[in-house]
Amino acid sequence: MDDAPAYSPTPRTRATRNRDRVRYDAATVHAILDEGRLCHLGFVADGAPVVLPTLYARVGGVLYLHGSTGAAAMRAARDGGLEVCATVTLTDGLVLARSGMHHSVNYRSVVVRGTARRVSDEAEQRSALDAIVDAVVPGRSADCRPADAKELAQTAVLRLELREVSAKVRTGGVNEEPEDLDLPHWAGVVPVTETIGAPEPDAAMAPGTPLPGYLRTFTGASD
Amino acid sequence: MDDAPAYSPTPRTRATRNRDRVRYDAATVHAILDEGRLCHLGFVADGAPVVLPTLYARVGGVLYLHGSTGAAAMRAARDGGLEVCATVTLTDGLVLARSGMHHSVNYRSVVVRGTARRVSDEAEQRSALDAIVDAVVPGRSADCRPADAKELAQTAVLRLELREVSAKVRTGGVNEEPEDLDLPHWAGVVPVTETIGAPEPDAAMAPGTPLPGYLRTFTGASD
Repeated sequence: MDDAPAYSPTPRTRATRNRDRVRYDAATVHAILDEGRLCHLGFVADGAPVVLPTLYARVGGVLYLHGSTGAAAMRAARDGGLEVCATVTLTDGLVLARSGMHHSVNYRSVVVRGTARRVSDEAEQRSALDAIVDAVVPGRSADCRPADAKELAQTAVLRLELREVSAKVRTGGVNEEPEDLDLPHWAGVVPVTETIGAPEPDAAMAPGTPLPGYLRTFTGASD
Repeated sequence: MDDAPAYSPTPRTRATRNRDRVRYDAATVHAILDEGRLCHLGFVADGAPVVLPTLYARVGGVLYLHGSTGAAAMRAARDGGLEVCATVTLTDGLVLARSGMHHSVNYRSVVVRGTARRVSDEAEQRSALDAIVDAVVPGRSADCRPADAKELAQTAVLRLELREVSAKVRTGGVNEEPEDLDLPHWAGVVPVTETIGAPEPDAAMAPGTPLPGYLRTFTGASD
């Protein structure tokens, strides 16, 4: 699935505005999903929309979602599947134009729509949970205690196929009305990035416990 | 409204799990909304959930949402109101426990549910758009060209009252099963913050144009 050249637009994912920002190619979609860590998972409960921040991982053409989305949603996902929309957004910059209306944000987002189903196979559940831990910090799942049977029974994982998918990407500088270019206002882009800080060891750890290699890489630590 | 001590829980916002993380006090809710910039706006379209990243601003007890959410949603918001769920999530840290199951994220989120209505009053629309620009960079709305009549007509703003609101906050270190404390795995928290970079001036600006004071403050620039 990683070699899939592109997702096919559907009536629901076809862009109605800013068409030049929309992408369906798998490379763009997968890169955004792999850089993100939390999605905002939307579903309908008692007829009304609900959106909850949810950890996830992409494995090939599947999104696995951590099932902390409430009992009713989990029952629906187990029984017949739960209609969801999972959206991942990365912010790259604030675009300050000379006109208020052309202010914008440089961002990369992916919207995945479809039916999420609760994973019932234990091996798939285990590998999905490992993938979610590795999506938080690459390499971490091999350096912690795996779930035991009781923990597995308490934890739901949802599986959402990447079929109806679109990405939206805004990059670059300001867009202005030509007649605004001479206005005296400062214009340009303010970059926004996520910064990973220095790891804060748990007080119960033995003093001097070294930082594992995957965490040194992830945090850019020198010790 | 800023002095409101707390929002009242409703059956839909009452926590069913991790109750100790849920807050209804206005100070916590407003601080999270004011630090955020993008919400994830959920609504129902043709019976299915849709979640889109959306700029917003809080003004007192109202959330104003930038109306780039598609024509069908905007029509619904104009005609009878659109049932929405607006969720804002700030990530503060990655919590690496000795067991896979206790991995977590330090985060602060707010979920607002209710009926969004399209703003029709021009003065309210103007002040809402200014507030949204100032939510991106404080002080910016006074330093750009205001919208003209044509731009106002093209831009929808949604108004969502802060009535059915809850916050969720996870802070602190790892939670472990007592029997896991002696496991050899590194445990602790990896902080995550948003970093504002050095402003990148538009090439069409006169060389040497100084950075306005509000942008020096916002970006921590020294020039």
